[in-house]
Amino acid sequence: MAKIPRSNENDYTQEMSQTRREFIETETGAPLSHLGHYSIPPATLSGNIENFAGVAQVPVGFAGPMVVNGEHAKGEFYVPMATTEGTLVASYSRGMRLTREAGGVTTTVIDDAMQRAPMFAFADAREALAFGKWVTQHFDGIKAASDATTSVGRLRDIEQYAASKLRWLRFNYTCGDAAGQNMVSKATKAGCEWILANYPGKVEHFVLAANLDTDKKHSHLNSLHTRGKRVVAEVTLPKKLMTEIMHCPPEALFKQRQYSNMGALMAGSVSNGAHFANGITAMFIACGQDVANVAESSAGFTYAEITPNGDYYFSVTIPSLIVATYGGGTGLATQNECLNVLGCTGQGKVNKFAEIVAATVLCGDLSLASAVVADEWVSSHERLGRNR
Amino acid sequence: MAKIPRSNENDYTQEMSQTRREFIETETGAPLSHLGHYSIPPATLSGNIENFAGVAQVPVGFAGPMVVNGEHAKGEFYVPMATTEGTLVASYSRGMRLTREAGGVTTTVIDDAMQRAPMFAFADAREALAFGKWVTQHFDGIKAASDATTSVGRLRDIEQYAASKLRWLRFNYTCGDAAGQNMVSKATKAGCEWILANYPGKVEHFVLAANLDTDKKHSHLNSLHTRGKRVVAEVTLPKKLMTEIMHCPPEALFKQRQYSNMGALMAGSVSNGAHFANGITAMFIACGQDVANVAESSAGFTYAEITPNGDYYFSVTIPSLIVATYGGGTGLATQNECLNVLGCTGQGKVNKFAEIVAATVLCGDLSLASAVVADEWVSSHERLGRNR
Amino acid sequence: MAKIPRSNENDYTQEMSQTRREFIETETGAPLSHLGHYSIPPATLSGNIENFAGVAQVPVGFAGPMVVNGEHAKGEFYVPMATTEGTLVASYSRGMRLTREAGGVTTTVIDDAMQRAPMFAFADAREALAFGKWVTQHFDGIKAASDATTSVGRLRDIEQYAASKLRWLRFNYTCGDAAGQNMVSKATKAGCEWILANYPGKVEHFVLAANLDTDKKHSHLNSLHTRGKRVVAEVTLPKKLMTEIMHCPPEALFKQRQYSNMGALMAGSVSNGAHFANGITAMFIACGQDVANVAESSAGFTYAEITPNGDYYFSVTIPSLIVATYGGGTGLATQNECLNVLGCTGQGKVNKFAEIVAATVLCGDLSLASAVVADEWVSSHERLGRNR
Amino acid sequence: MAKIPRSNENDYTQEMSQTRREFIETETGAPLSHLGHYSIPPATLSGNIENFAGVAQVPVGFAGPMVVNGEHAKGEFYVPMATTEGTLVASYSRGMRLTREAGGVTTTVIDDAMQRAPMFAFADAREALAFGKWVTQHFDGIKAASDATTSVGRLRDIEQYAASKLRWLRFNYTCGDAAGQNMVSKATKAGCEWILANYPGKVEHFVLAANLDTDKKHSHLNSLHTRGKRVVAEVTLPKKLMTEIMHCPPEALFKQRQYSNMGALMAGSVSNGAHFANGITAMFIACGQDVANVAESSAGFTYAEITPNGDYYFSVTIPSLIVATYGGGTGLATQNECLNVLGCTGQGKVNKFAEIVAATVLCGDLSLASAVVADEWVSSHERLGRNR
Repeated sequence: MAKIPRSNENDYTQEMSQTRREFIETETGAPLSHLGHYSIPPATLSGNIENFAGVAQVPVGFAGPMVVNGEHAKGEFYVPMATTEGTLVASYSRGMRLTREAGGVTTTVIDDAMQRAPMFAFADAREALAFGKWVTQHFDGIKAASDATTSVGRLRDIEQYAASKLRWLRFNYTCGDAAGQNMVSKATKAGCEWILANYPGKVEHFVLAANLDTDKKHSHLNSLHTRGKRVVAEVTLPKKLMTEIMHCPPEALFKQRQYSNMGALMAGSVSNGAHFANGITAMFIACGQDVANVAESSAGFTYAEITPNGDYYFSVTIPSLIVATYGGGTGLATQNECLNVLGCTGQGKVNKFAEIVAATVLCGDLSLASAVVADEWVSSHERLGRNR
Repeated sequence: MAKIPRSNENDYTQEMSQTRREFIETETGAPLSHLGHYSIPPATLSGNIENFAGVAQVPVGFAGPMVVNGEHAKGEFYVPMATTEGTLVASYSRGMRLTREAGGVTTTVIDDAMQRAPMFAFADAREALAFGKWVTQHFDGIKAASDATTSVGRLRDIEQYAASKLRWLRFNYTCGDAAGQNMVSKATKAGCEWILANYPGKVEHFVLAANLDTDKKHSHLNSLHTRGKRVVAEVTLPKKLMTEIMHCPPEALFKQRQYSNMGALMAGSVSNGAHFANGITAMFIACGQDVANVAESSAGFTYAEITPNGDYYFSVTIPSLIVATYGGGTGLATQNECLNVLGCTGQGKVNKFAEIVAATVLCGDLSLASAVVADEWVSSHERLGRNR
Repeated sequence: MAKIPRSNENDYTQEMSQTRREFIETETGAPLSHLGHYSIPPATLSGNIENFAGVAQVPVGFAGPMVVNGEHAKGEFYVPMATTEGTLVASYSRGMRLTREAGGVTTTVIDDAMQRAPMFAFADAREALAFGKWVTQHFDGIKAASDATTSVGRLRDIEQYAASKLRWLRFNYTCGDAAGQNMVSKATKAGCEWILANYPGKVEHFVLAANLDTDKKHSHLNSLHTRGKRVVAEVTLPKKLMTEIMHCPPEALFKQRQYSNMGALMAGSVSNGAHFANGITAMFIACGQDVANVAESSAGFTYAEITPNGDYYFSVTIPSLIVATYGGGTGLATQNECLNVLGCTGQGKVNKFAEIVAATVLCGDLSLASAVVADEWVSSHERLGRNR
Repeated sequence: MAKIPRSNENDYTQEMSQTRREFIETETGAPLSHLGHYSIPPATLSGNIENFAGVAQVPVGFAGPMVVNGEHAKGEFYVPMATTEGTLVASYSRGMRLTREAGGVTTTVIDDAMQRAPMFAFADAREALAFGKWVTQHFDGIKAASDATTSVGRLRDIEQYAASKLRWLRFNYTCGDAAGQNMVSKATKAGCEWILANYPGKVEHFVLAANLDTDKKHSHLNSLHTRGKRVVAEVTLPKKLMTEIMHCPPEALFKQRQYSNMGALMAGSVSNGAHFANGITAMFIACGQDVANVAESSAGFTYAEITPNGDYYFSVTIPSLIVATYGGGTGLATQNECLNVLGCTGQGKVNKFAEIVAATVLCGDLSLASAVVADEWVSSHERLGRNR
């Protein structure tokens, strides 16, 4: 079996990219005529990918304009969405039109934390408990060790979770404009080394991660305690507007929400929303986010009310929105352009980006819910999408 | 606020793509020099996106070769992965090398179902129960109505879920090479129309979807009963190999698995695996899948054993792997090339693709787990990745 | 350390009961003057307890009358509740008065199944899949073997759940008037022995239970698929009544329900109801049920609506109500008297009893919810209960 | 419909008890000859029950002796268990013998908190966030108001949980020897009144409870953060002992644990243990606990290891064990006697009782698991229990 070619000197070149495509073509017989069509300089990809051989061309459409009344995102936005699913951009645009006519979406980042949760094992539960108390008393020392590894990340607090003779420490950090998973791994490792060097008791076993974090997968813990940004997007839709534009009165939408809440509860769903994942994924691909975080970021809560005067209050809460405007794929060519369209390049823009994502999610959920209610759903897919 | 330009005659042209980029540039001041660099013909994008304005260039690297002993995927594969996360391709490659030396990954598709779950409301629970019995008795009529809407989808069975005066019918279909979400929406709508036309009792309310499906979000129901393909990938790693290549003996890996199982249980995680989402997402982007399905497809189960002779049996089970080799983005330029590299174009290839994805997930989880154990994790990120 | 005295000849006598009390008094110094005060003949306790030494005297109060419009329970009931929690009987009575004035509670048993879920392990997932297909094809043989062990239990169907190389078979039985856990263990064991004797493939490992059942603990699986009886209780409360008796208008109650739904969703609760457990436990103790089943039976769903004319529709769904009117503690002295008060002794009464329990649960949840709303909660506890 | 008789002067008398029994007999035709056989003075029941009419005689057996090496429970205990389920006492006794021969069960209370979680609603998420910050800053004032209502309860901290425009405050208290649910309701109400009087912003809606607590039902939140006592019980069973007494070697027990972990994970169970509920329920009834708390207290975690020298480490963690040695039913006649047998009457005994319960749970889980493994399960039920 042939190994994929690599260059020890410089692996991020047009030549190596082409060499690898030719290798794959030879080995598999599959022609790669489009994969090599790209404008990004391979030299910029070190740190983003290995065995680089070309690019996936994922179609980008713009939805909007969407009006956001955030603390960080204020004004009108054209939202870049990378997707291959017909009707998605159109559906989000429809929701954006609706909220625009209602005065825009209000957004608030209500919490912010990225974490790594190392685990310590002891001889028994009593020693684990003693360790936990020691950690609480020595937070300053741990923080000094952790924070020393990064100019951006700051250890905020350490939560503790216990079972049997095991104790997990959930290190919570703020990470500036980065998503921070790697930053906090490094910092937590340093913090743990400090603990291991200074704790007078005996640690039987230590591991930097053991699935309590939980990274790249949804957990109820993270929905409760935030991973990344916790963002709320809200809107109040006038009764008149609902009827005229969406052809679905607030009462009908609210009824559908009640059924959906029951459906989600019975199914044991991680979200009672409609399709947070669609908008988040499309924005994540377009804007250079770590798309695998869709596994975590797509879970959330929806809450609706009929107001005393018959309008429809609607909100989405995304408890684990993992976003960045620095690091990862955010600096790559098309990705950076898309962030720039949203005014989210440069320092201190991550909360702005989080708010725009949340507002987009809200618009998409409103659009789908009202389409379901108005029975336009299947037929709109037939008109715009392919029948898959 | 300006509306994004559209053409009523033909919206999928180079001109309209450029017109929209110029519009966005004008409105936002953000230059779009890379977004317009693509080789896919806009005319092919009708049904995949609206307001098309260019492409996201997502770097693709190949991992492997990976050896798969599936029922459908047999032999050696170079796996296309689209990602911007450093170390990802390298890490999966490392796992593939390990399983290759162990003789390859065994894969099996053990279930297959795509669904839509309409809800019916009645005057009370007793009427809902009577309805449920009627549906069971009239399955043939419902199936005839549903199946008539599609040449590919076939209604397999209808599960029923009940609470209060509500009854959800979970229509399960096989969908050929398509993922099938739209297909089953249309078919289920037809089935429900048949029900509504023929049921002698009174249905108080009907809605085509109310979150029990659950689409674009994980649910325990789907983990139990499959959404898309249910795939298992397995490998038995000889003790000698583990120590030499991975620098981590089976006992150490198994111990880490025990801790991770407890961590996942405590966190209330939808997966006790390590990072299914990374491999799935990278393959989904590269191969034209609906990437938002990462929300569902990334959940799953890991199960490991030390065999009587000291080897390490390791498996991943993905209960809701939603994949397609036809429809959606599978026919687009780079996406189709990547599917072709895997020998997954043409008819009857969807199970082959599902098996390759599952094998990839297994390799990635093995690689990460062993890296954590061998304490190479943070340092390998520092060497290959950026410090975010 | 001294062993508790036992008689090899006859352990269920007044003498042995007293001998054990004296032994405990001697060993611990604690006088047992009340424990030995009972009227039940020890001879009737064989099969119910070992090391019998007396009885716990649990106070019983009657709530009601409650009006039930069930399929099996029809009319007016005085509900025996054994509890030591002040306000409990009063609160349930208050709810019963409310529903009585609304015309009574409608109840329906919508499903019925008791199960044991043995697990079979194989060499790999493919063999596990083949086994699963074989089981489906040989249901009749399995059923014959299972049913032969009992004159009452009947194997209804076998569900299959799969992960890795493991396959769980969930044997579902109807069990007449018994709760049936022991009956189905025995029957399933026989069914599995038939499988093991006849399956031509190789089973690597077999175990009669491995936590998928799930016995004596709540699981989402059981909430979806029923364990014991699945019962719904419903009532529609006229707007006028709500205001006059409960001092809480339907809108206020519905608002509280919305908040409670969100609270339960966020908490990851197994129930969005208020306190199903209180009524179920009190009735279970009074009526000789296996009280440990409260762990399973107390989970459930609440669903409410404001009707078009402003009334309050309220329902509770108990998906795993494990009840019996035969076997277990149902034949003991006070327990049988309490069942008799409800007209639930003699053959064919288990569904009647299930309906009465569900109606009681509904009344209690209504009472508590309206008390919370009306802010009477803390103060009523102060008046009737002790300050604990 | 006839109302159940009550006395306005003194309802807790022999006469009223008899009057009510006669009323029930007349109304239902069911003779109540045993229900009135009790030795507890009705006058002691005020605050424990309403409409008192007699007692349920629940058989009590003693299991043990059990050896506990706790921080609070030290030595040998005979455990009172009230149950009607045959084999239960025998099975727990068998587990106690096993752990006794292994040197006893080690127990540790690792956390302690009882809570009430009021909810506050605001105009939008931003105001909810501002409120949350204010609460953190004014903890001292809130605590003063809460603590003033009770001589025993002490507000420890307030956790905050947020979604949409809603904010739940989870007030955590220590409650001395009481379970504390009523105590914390009263204290939290006072704390909230202080908040409502002092908070300068506008609270749109306030409610003392909205299902986040979560009272009388299991929630993942409580498993993470403790409700009542969080207790761990541990034992290391020598390999030799396992084989000789239990007829099941550590490896076989560990294998069964692996299968049970997977079964629980797939089922979505609230516990990966075997049957915590059985032991807890039997002790709760015998010892005057609020038995409805079985719904919460029976959930938990099991963790096992094969030690380097082949022994079996086994532990149970009960995260929400709600127990009391003061208040509720703890002072009633037989209940107090049973507490006294355990040396758990008088001040400062609640942690001792919690440890004994946890040790009992461990013994029961060990016994059942080893019985399943040794295939003695069904046959032992046939010998000792009735065939239900």
